[in-house]
This record gives sequence, structure tokens and C-alpha cells, in this order.
Amino acid sequence: MGLDKIEHLGIAVKDLGASEKLFEALLGVAPYKREEVEREGVITSFFQTGPNKVELLEATNPDSPIAKYVEKKGEGLHHVAFAVNDIRAEMARLKSEGFQLLSEEPKEGADNKLVAFLHPKSTNGVLIELCQDRG
Amino acid sequence: MGLDKIEHLGIAVKDLGASEKLFEALLGVAPYKREEVEREGVITSFFQTGPNKVELLEATNPDSPIAKYVEKKGEGLHHVAFAVNDIRAEMARLKSEGFQLLSEEPKEGADNKLVAFLHPKSTNGVLIELCQDRG
Repeated sequence: MGLDKIEHLGIAVKDLGASEKLFEALLGVAPYKREEVEREGVITSFFQTGPNKVELLEATNPDSPIAKYVEKKGEGLHHVAFAVNDIRAEMARLKSEGFQLLSEEPKEGADNKLVAFLHPKSTNGVLIELCQDRG
Repeated sequence: MGLDKIEHLGIAVKDLGASEKLFEALLGVAPYKREEVEREGVITSFFQTGPNKVELLEATNPDSPIAKYVEKKGEGLHHVAFAVNDIRAEMARLKSEGFQLLSEEPKEGADNKLVAFLHPKSTNGVLIELCQDRG
């Protein structure tokens, strides 16, 4: 039990095309895919950095959580996702530890994952995602 | 050339003792060391999560960059550090790509590293650290 590696780091951006170029120059590697998550109102782009990923997120509509985040705080670090083996067991463990979950059940996320988020108020202001391979 | 894995994720906190307990419950692992970096005005605490680390940072004086960050933005994600093999070569490469470095030379950082930072204005608002083992 417990969280494993940093599966990915999510970065909120205004212009996915421009930020893909910037992060390709920065990381020295090209993005390996784009994927839209319609339910969340985002289009994402992924880079592999060793065992971890960087996920750029651009809002696809003004009601998207990413649009609101960028409006309020500007572009930048948005969330960190940790890999877990059994997301339901981890959700139950964290709930019993007093952490506040944003949903009772895991959801389908980008990159073939089951995901769940913890409320940043219960985690020192850090939006934390749990992330399990859908296999 | 290019950046490798996420060496660590830096999180700004107000109360290191309280946050160590919180992240121990969250990650399911105890912190493995505390270290003060006097020049930066911070005391840090490290957790190992698979191949990556989480670094909590508390300011040790009111002029510390972490004190200013917490005052302005609150607790939360502060920076991401990527591992590099040759920090001086990466600094030269990134400079030539148009990124803005916060120092001309690498500095001694926590956890036996040579470190350098990129200005967040040149990286979509993300404070990025390069991090090489001092060996």
C-alpha cells in the first residue's frame, strides 16, 4: 500500500502548440501523443522523461477546470499524479487517513488510466491524482 | 543531451513537522532525511517514491524565497527538478535555446547535488531545476 512513482506532472498552459515546442526544446524530446478528455474539457499532450511523464493541459472550453485555473493563477504546475497498483484500495486507505477525495469512484482519465483526485485543501495545497493502468 | 527523470518535486509548506506527518500518511513512506540549505533559507525533508523524490521546503527566515512564495501564493507545488548528466552542458544548451537561467554557474543544493534553476517566465510559469549528482 502507498503511492509509487510520479506517473506524471500536469502543467496548465494557454496554447498547447506553443507549449509543445517550448517543452520539446526544454526536455530534448518530442511529445508522443495528444489526447482530448472531453468530460474534463481539456486537450493534453504527453512527453516521456525517463520513467515519468510531463502532461501539458489546455482548456477546450471556458468552463474547463484548466480554464479557471489559468485565469486565476496563470500557467504553471497544476497537479502531480502518483502511480498506484489498486486505486480503490488506495482511495479507501486515504479516506480513512482523513484525506478528502474529489469523487467516490475512480474515473477514466487520459493515457488509458483510472484516476482519482484528492482535494488540495487536505494536501498542503497540492492537487494530487492517483493513477492506475486500465490494462 | 536533454533532461532525464523527475529527480524530485518541491513543495512549499508552512510547518515542516506537520507536513511530514501529512505526506507520510499520503505516500505511505516515512521521510528519509532532513537537510538545511542555509544559503537558500530553507529546511527540507525528503521522501522516496519509487525512482523519484518529494522534497518539502519550509522557510527558515522571512527573506527566504520560500517565505515569499508561501506569502504570495500559499502552500503548494513550488518547483520540479529534472536529473541531468552534465549540468554545465545542459545549461549551455538551454541558454542557446533561449531559456533564461537564474545563475551562470551551478550551485551546491540539498541531497548532494549541483543545481541550477530556469526562470519561470521562460518556461510557462514552471520553476524548473536541473540537478546533477555531485558524486
